[in-house]
Amino acid sequence: MPKDDTHLITAHDVARHAGVSRSAVSRTFTPGASVSPHTRDKVMASARALGYQVNLIARTMNKGYSNFVGVVTAGFESPFRASLLSPITVALNRQGLMPLLMNADDPLQLEQSLHELLSYQIAGVILTSASPPLSVVQHYLKHQIPVAMINRGHELEGAEVIGSDNRGGGRLAADTLLAGGAKRLAFIGQGTHNYSSRERWEGFRDRLAEVGLSPVAVLDAAPGYDGGLGAVQQLFSASERPDALFCATDMLAMGALDGLRFKLQLSVPNDVQVIGFDDIPQAANLAYNLTTLRQNSNALAASAVAAIVARRKNFQQRSVHGSIAVSLVSRGSTIE
Amino acid sequence: MPKDDTHLITAHDVARHAGVSRSAVSRTFTPGASVSPHTRDKVMASARALGYQVNLIARTMNKGYSNFVGVVTAGFESPFRASLLSPITVALNRQGLMPLLMNADDPLQLEQSLHELLSYQIAGVILTSASPPLSVVQHYLKHQIPVAMINRGHELEGAEVIGSDNRGGGRLAADTLLAGGAKRLAFIGQGTHNYSSRERWEGFRDRLAEVGLSPVAVLDAAPGYDGGLGAVQQLFSASERPDALFCATDMLAMGALDGLRFKLQLSVPNDVQVIGFDDIPQAANLAYNLTTLRQNSNALAASAVAAIVARRKNFQQRSVHGSIAVSLVSRGSTIE
Repeated sequence: MPKDDTHLITAHDVARHAGVSRSAVSRTFTPGASVSPHTRDKVMASARALGYQVNLIARTMNKGYSNFVGVVTAGFESPFRASLLSPITVALNRQGLMPLLMNADDPLQLEQSLHELLSYQIAGVILTSASPPLSVVQHYLKHQIPVAMINRGHELEGAEVIGSDNRGGGRLAADTLLAGGAKRLAFIGQGTHNYSSRERWEGFRDRLAEVGLSPVAVLDAAPGYDGGLGAVQQLFSASERPDALFCATDMLAMGALDGLRFKLQLSVPNDVQVIGFDDIPQAANLAYNLTTLRQNSNALAASAVAAIVARRKNFQQRSVHGSIAVSLVSRGSTIE
Repeated sequence: MPKDDTHLITAHDVARHAGVSRSAVSRTFTPGASVSPHTRDKVMASARALGYQVNLIARTMNKGYSNFVGVVTAGFESPFRASLLSPITVALNRQGLMPLLMNADDPLQLEQSLHELLSYQIAGVILTSASPPLSVVQHYLKHQIPVAMINRGHELEGAEVIGSDNRGGGRLAADTLLAGGAKRLAFIGQGTHNYSSRERWEGFRDRLAEVGLSPVAVLDAAPGYDGGLGAVQQLFSASERPDALFCATDMLAMGALDGLRFKLQLSVPNDVQVIGFDDIPQAANLAYNLTTLRQNSNALAASAVAAIVARRKNFQQRSVHGSIAVSLVSRGSTIE
């Protein structure tokens, strides 16, 4: 049987070559279907040996939707957003689904890509970006394509919303700094239009109000390191300097830390305690040693994928509003 | 005309609604076809208003391949590899192509995903990972699906190979450290199986040999920050300590820098000059202020996509072996 002539190879040929049933071959190539690892290995080896390939495009046409899920993200250089891509890919693959990557950095191109995706009968869309075009996403829901949003507001009726417990994290940040003796607390966030940043601020502010404190804040810092570096110099130009700082992301906190040390010649944590949010890998670098609230990327990704799969089975069900706990990672930038 | 009933909407309806020719509608939805921005906008607006969608899956069946390109990457938490995803997505979109993201962290799952991709009639594959399963990729070439590899060796006949000028970068690192007065030079790399790391080492070593110097090296550090942190302590336990250090990646260099300062109480650049490779965003942080060789991510991505598109048009053409220049970014970790 010539290896190149893949169009002549049928599932029956593969089954005979592998010494398994025709149904075992079919199940091996059906995402999510049950098949033993041993059988799957035999089938895959025979499929490779014979050059067999299922025409999944043709299968999609029969089924009505494909195995693709659009994953929309902006700012790939953000370590936290990048850290979501791996668990999203793994969680989708486990369901027999594959991520189509879409870049939200260019809204015009994104809108065209999202529109084009409709034509691919995609199984769903996951938004991890801070700047999605909700109008196009609404179009998806109208076509009964599930939409899951990670760390976004509930502004879209019918979408699944999975987020970290941002308010709880904000409260925990306040308690951690207070336990370290903080008296004059401050916050740096990246814009009130950023849902996560706003929720973290509200949790922080509300917890401090309970103990009679009123934090100062820069709410509209630019995102990332440069935003933190600039905002901390603005905060510390006031006559009464803060002694504790909560930043809405680790990137902001790293910029703030460098500003405190290299621009203001202040010592962390003795002069100023600092706490971040995300727990990106760099937060653990000796140069930062940043106390932070860890987001559970694996749980966020798995919940978003599970919500899409469930909705795919029954589009009429209520949408999910999931909240994933965050945990305190104590390092050297706060006082125990 | 009811908006929901998308199956009744034809290209003819869209053309009439937009006041353009039927051919203009067709060109708008044909990746790479020429259409004026003004016409495209009108068509897209009408398509949205009417709920029109081309069935691209059906079109793929006619054309013989889809608009998907598999993008295989491992270690999304590597800032440099993450930084490639955005320009790859942009370059593919410009050609009417879309990236299907594949995770090489789990080789077994990857092999199944890659095999499954064959069934989607993908237009090509881009490998950015350090650990690709060449056997599966060979399978692609056999099916006349172009394969482009970024920063990898030429070990696969028929694949397009696009890489930074790693040897030139290694030589430039040597010259930069020598100009700063270095006498005892050292290198940290992440394994001799890593093609880029090996090339950078060879360029560095060969340049130093020309001036009669022989560097010490840890060639098999673990990848990333922890690898650099460990390797620098190993290097500096020798009786004659290096006074200059070239690291194969910025992540290694950041770990090495922190090891020098926080574990060995040495000053950079006065006691030891340090130079990295990549120019990830964190290299510019005040805490690192790292001199480095900048890889041109945009050019790497654009060249890989262009190679796939050219090969798609004529599979018989010779494969591309492209080398992209790197540039020195001088910061505070070396002596000018």
